[in-house]
Amino acid sequence: MIAGVIGAAGYAGAELVRLLSGHKRVKALSLGSVSLEGGRIEGIYPNFLEKVSSPLVKPEEVIAASDVIFAALPHGVGEAYAKACLEKGVHFIDLSADFRFDDDEETFKAWYGKPYVHPELRKRSVYGLPELNRERIKSLAASGPAIIGNPGCYPTGASLGMLPALAKALAAEGTVIVDSASGVTGGGREPQRSFHFPECSDSVSPYKVGAHRHVPEISRNMREMAARYSGTAPSLVFTPHLAPMNRGILSTVYIPLKKEWQAAPGGSVSAPRPPSKEIEERAGEIRSLYAAFFKDEPFVRVLPPGVMASTGRVRQSNFCDISVNMDQGGSTLVVATAIDNMVKGAAGQAVQNMNILLGFDESEGLEAVPALF
Amino acid sequence: MIAGVIGAAGYAGAELVRLLSGHKRVKALSLGSVSLEGGRIEGIYPNFLEKVSSPLVKPEEVIAASDVIFAALPHGVGEAYAKACLEKGVHFIDLSADFRFDDDEETFKAWYGKPYVHPELRKRSVYGLPELNRERIKSLAASGPAIIGNPGCYPTGASLGMLPALAKALAAEGTVIVDSASGVTGGGREPQRSFHFPECSDSVSPYKVGAHRHVPEISRNMREMAARYSGTAPSLVFTPHLAPMNRGILSTVYIPLKKEWQAAPGGSVSAPRPPSKEIEERAGEIRSLYAAFFKDEPFVRVLPPGVMASTGRVRQSNFCDISVNMDQGGSTLVVATAIDNMVKGAAGQAVQNMNILLGFDESEGLEAVPALF
Amino acid sequence: MIAGVIGAAGYAGAELVRLLSGHKRVKALSLGSVSLEGGRIEGIYPNFLEKVSSPLVKPEEVIAASDVIFAALPHGVGEAYAKACLEKGVHFIDLSADFRFDDDEETFKAWYGKPYVHPELRKRSVYGLPELNRERIKSLAASGPAIIGNPGCYPTGASLGMLPALAKALAAEGTVIVDSASGVTGGGREPQRSFHFPECSDSVSPYKVGAHRHVPEISRNMREMAARYSGTAPSLVFTPHLAPMNRGILSTVYIPLKKEWQAAPGGSVSAPRPPSKEIEERAGEIRSLYAAFFKDEPFVRVLPPGVMASTGRVRQSNFCDISVNMDQGGSTLVVATAIDNMVKGAAGQAVQNMNILLGFDESEGLEAVPALF
Amino acid sequence: MIAGVIGAAGYAGAELVRLLSGHKRVKALSLGSVSLEGGRIEGIYPNFLEKVSSPLVKPEEVIAASDVIFAALPHGVGEAYAKACLEKGVHFIDLSADFRFDDDEETFKAWYGKPYVHPELRKRSVYGLPELNRERIKSLAASGPAIIGNPGCYPTGASLGMLPALAKALAAEGTVIVDSASGVTGGGREPQRSFHFPECSDSVSPYKVGAHRHVPEISRNMREMAARYSGTAPSLVFTPHLAPMNRGILSTVYIPLKKEWQAAPGGSVSAPRPPSKEIEERAGEIRSLYAAFFKDEPFVRVLPPGVMASTGRVRQSNFCDISVNMDQGGSTLVVATAIDNMVKGAAGQAVQNMNILLGFDESEGLEAVPALF
Repeated sequence: MIAGVIGAAGYAGAELVRLLSGHKRVKALSLGSVSLEGGRIEGIYPNFLEKVSSPLVKPEEVIAASDVIFAALPHGVGEAYAKACLEKGVHFIDLSADFRFDDDEETFKAWYGKPYVHPELRKRSVYGLPELNRERIKSLAASGPAIIGNPGCYPTGASLGMLPALAKALAAEGTVIVDSASGVTGGGREPQRSFHFPECSDSVSPYKVGAHRHVPEISRNMREMAARYSGTAPSLVFTPHLAPMNRGILSTVYIPLKKEWQAAPGGSVSAPRPPSKEIEERAGEIRSLYAAFFKDEPFVRVLPPGVMASTGRVRQSNFCDISVNMDQGGSTLVVATAIDNMVKGAAGQAVQNMNILLGFDESEGLEAVPALF
Repeated sequence: MIAGVIGAAGYAGAELVRLLSGHKRVKALSLGSVSLEGGRIEGIYPNFLEKVSSPLVKPEEVIAASDVIFAALPHGVGEAYAKACLEKGVHFIDLSADFRFDDDEETFKAWYGKPYVHPELRKRSVYGLPELNRERIKSLAASGPAIIGNPGCYPTGASLGMLPALAKALAAEGTVIVDSASGVTGGGREPQRSFHFPECSDSVSPYKVGAHRHVPEISRNMREMAARYSGTAPSLVFTPHLAPMNRGILSTVYIPLKKEWQAAPGGSVSAPRPPSKEIEERAGEIRSLYAAFFKDEPFVRVLPPGVMASTGRVRQSNFCDISVNMDQGGSTLVVATAIDNMVKGAAGQAVQNMNILLGFDESEGLEAVPALF
Repeated sequence: MIAGVIGAAGYAGAELVRLLSGHKRVKALSLGSVSLEGGRIEGIYPNFLEKVSSPLVKPEEVIAASDVIFAALPHGVGEAYAKACLEKGVHFIDLSADFRFDDDEETFKAWYGKPYVHPELRKRSVYGLPELNRERIKSLAASGPAIIGNPGCYPTGASLGMLPALAKALAAEGTVIVDSASGVTGGGREPQRSFHFPECSDSVSPYKVGAHRHVPEISRNMREMAARYSGTAPSLVFTPHLAPMNRGILSTVYIPLKKEWQAAPGGSVSAPRPPSKEIEERAGEIRSLYAAFFKDEPFVRVLPPGVMASTGRVRQSNFCDISVNMDQGGSTLVVATAIDNMVKGAAGQAVQNMNILLGFDESEGLEAVPALF
Repeated sequence: MIAGVIGAAGYAGAELVRLLSGHKRVKALSLGSVSLEGGRIEGIYPNFLEKVSSPLVKPEEVIAASDVIFAALPHGVGEAYAKACLEKGVHFIDLSADFRFDDDEETFKAWYGKPYVHPELRKRSVYGLPELNRERIKSLAASGPAIIGNPGCYPTGASLGMLPALAKALAAEGTVIVDSASGVTGGGREPQRSFHFPECSDSVSPYKVGAHRHVPEISRNMREMAARYSGTAPSLVFTPHLAPMNRGILSTVYIPLKKEWQAAPGGSVSAPRPPSKEIEERAGEIRSLYAAFFKDEPFVRVLPPGVMASTGRVRQSNFCDISVNMDQGGSTLVVATAIDNMVKGAAGQAVQNMNILLGFDESEGLEAVPALF
């Protein structure tokens, strides 16, 4: 099988190349770039020398040559390629936001400033968070060529951190707060002042407070998760931060608990005490519930008590690590999730979606043990 | 005037040495260390060579020689020195937690596992957050030798981020969430696996979730701030994270707003939209309120719209930078504060307290322009 | 086949576990630790959760259970295990220095401060730099169980940077200078002040100038390479530096050229000019010579003109990247080599040696494309 | 006195602003920018908020307003400003390379690709390395307005590392190798791919091998130093590297010693041994000679035995730290120097030059104790 990557010269595209080059079912790659057409992937990324050697061709040539297409393009430019793929009869896995909102064009327009070019394509598209939509992906693929709206990086970690809580109706009404820190690769390959080493190194800072485009995506997932399990979705506050590291997103998710899931506090509001035994036990109970919920998921690890999610421990892997704890007041669930933003947050999840679409082993090409450092 | 530092060989102690060596009113330093007595400060920290040269002597000698004493010691070991200072008639500025809880020994005991050694010392102690307690510090000093309970690093940034909101009664009942990321110097000078470069570099991770000793300190400050201005304090959820940088704490503080301070949302819960004009205006109003509140504070900068608090911009300085924004839902105030954990979060604030106690210009020794990088 | 790792809890040991767990010919692992016996590898390194699960047993049990043994132990403690392996009839791949000096016990003693415990073992040992000794390794393995003295991290990059120059007699008499910078994982897993994040982050510093234990190893390799090709070895000056990164060693190797290999300078000593056309051409010639020399080597990449060796481009891989240039004076060859110190500089090279010993494909288990970041 | 800075919006310019804002003799600043004219310095660098507030005006206005002018501009554009300053009768301190080569226009042209615009200005210019040219600077200033060619960052550390060896005729004929690693601020404020965080973080790499523009500057300094003390200059090989840190340059300088300065080797070439007692003693002798040479220099610290030069220990300061050692062979002096590239390597040295020109205390404005981290 030949896998095609359009936008192969960007960071997500190049990470796709790295992962697909080790995928046993992928016999060859066809790589495309709009802006660097005519170059070679190993010229742009010399780490590929002697491992991957390929010209960068026009997107049309990639589509013509390939049995499945990945697109790692800016938002709003890939719909024509999706259309071409459907017409050719091959799956299209899109890493942009174009297919993440299904038929909710209004929300897409409000946040991305563009209308859908071919709205009808959403009849053949599905949001590609396998832990939420695996069956939908499979059944869509069963009926013909499909489009995957591959999730955003922040929404992946944030949604997985909430899924069991919403599915099992632990969450009270109110507000879930997602506070995330991302590595700098999240900003892509193009040099910008914010990502200039002296400006971002040795510093942490929030950005786009209340205004990040992943707000509507996480929020939609929350409603979807709640609805799936007949609950109501809390509202969302989301703040991304830039952290001085290459890869990884750490999301700390604060979920207000329903009365029946709360535990006796460690002290009172006016005199908080360290977590009580009741809190430790309740946290353990919820941790077990999370572990049970994800027990068949190949890429979610609910961590044992005392081990905190850490981006350094999922490096280069498709894992989402989840640690489950409670605050000392006994009323808020504090879930931390760690992903590699380039793998589970982008290219790895796209490969996982390809595996599902094509009926491969879901872990094929994604078996890497997280690097120690 | 001679300033004494007990515990000068630790990171906070050495930072005190650095700051005090440039303080115009300090003519000489007397440096003490329990564990490294007999050594020299420039032997332990060669960055001091040709700038500061001093033996490390016994704490008793430091007290005998000095006109004001700083103690940067582990919790629970400095009370005897505080007592000796009061008896000698000199101020004692304590960077440990021993004097942060006033007469609430129960809370101290619950979190630090030790009783007060000399409970009566709290009659002469005050919590040294100048922005909250400047007048108390002055009036205590006016009546004789005083003890300062210098604030913890996280509580400094967290409390300053909430102070105007609680003082002006913006905050609804409910829960304030403080999500903080600290540089590794916060862990002190002793090598530990968590702070071993390969373990913490290029990674972000939470720790002590719901169980950090700064929970009761921040919570106490919240109640104090609310009470001072006749309000009620929200409850607190606090999560610290370790970030791969040397200095700095970035705290993102989520404050639920009272109805009258909320703004029309950017969309609804089920269809969030980018921040509305109303939200931008309300955020601007609250930002102005913060700026007005802190306008006479020498070390608090409320940042203009569009500039986010960033630890990299307060490096080596005593500033606390504050950025004020709202979430897209219009109901949560999202305040970010940045401090240098070693300066405003420890040694700089201690010097600020000395300046207040001794009637010096409050900025003396703390005029450093934040380093660009 | 079962592979055993003694010293699995250290960094090199854990990296062996990571690599071996993806090796197709390795059916199971047996992991041993002297100091952490009774623990589990995934307890110590939670990145292994759901990927590698194994108790840490006594070294004797590892030897009993395994078909090949790796030892990642401190210097001077593994000889008994080597002996036991020979007696059992299995290969022993030693990552310490114990078997790097063949029968030159005097040199080992002078630098490591210990005599050989079982000197006779050197009859069955070989220095495991495949690019130099592949045939010797094979022939030793052909005659029975063998011991590999797996090269040190610095000697690997330094020696590969010189090998063609010495083999092809480019080097003049005189002094070769090797100036290297290593990532902090080179210091191992045990916390030490030098590797404490605040002490080594954001800083570069030399250490053990003129006194590093890799001096005699590099020097021995130089003599060996020269002798192999009937030349004389230059003398060696070697300075290691610590750089603020996790993985990687960049070695810049300065080789004085014989007259016939020198090129017309870019200007004179007293008025140097940018590299002349002659220098560019001569550098190109020598680069081609290097490329030809290594053309069948699976893990050496001689980089094209304009691409400099960079540790970031060999991350997580077994490659040694080599860039070849000349100084503006036309008389010094400036070769830079980049390796991942944990892979080609330790565990990866050990696996490569195993593959050679056992007649596997030399790249098996080592196919990883270098990570982009 | 009013100090003017042209090019204040670049990194070196902004560092000048930071240093000058704390200089007691500087009553006001006038800041200029060609490309950002009309902006404000605290808008571009919010770390300046509430400390430095100034518009960025045209260079001509800066010159008109100021009593001394600093220019931190690209090479080849500042000569007209220098001329205007001489005409106005004020000193001009130039951080570009335009005035570093005195009347050797040929060398400047060969490396910078441009002729001198006003060659005659070199009659009033001097190379501003105070440790070499202090008296020349003073005597030039005594005769009227002067131009300072402020040294490059690498040449500062490299030259100071060699000065005593050349002055005292320790160096043999042959080649001095300077191997340097610089922090990323050395690349300036404009975003470029090489300085994009994901490309340079966690990696070390050489660049411009044999071709860096600082080659002729270091080489000229070597000849000057040798000539000054009637010696002959060795030739130079210089390789710069990029290291993942913000500030600092570590230069390791390899100086071949004359026979009479060599020491009995630690072993032979073919069997090197750890440094012999003779080597330790000789290194100590040369270290003392370095210390004596620099004993009146306010900004050079020759480190005690066992302490290595480290960029982390000169951070934010104008110090050049020097450690002196020998190789195990007894024939090469290995000197390491550490500077903060933005201070002693640029803005701090420029302020030092201003102090000399204007007869101020040479340390005024440069008293900062190096930051601990």
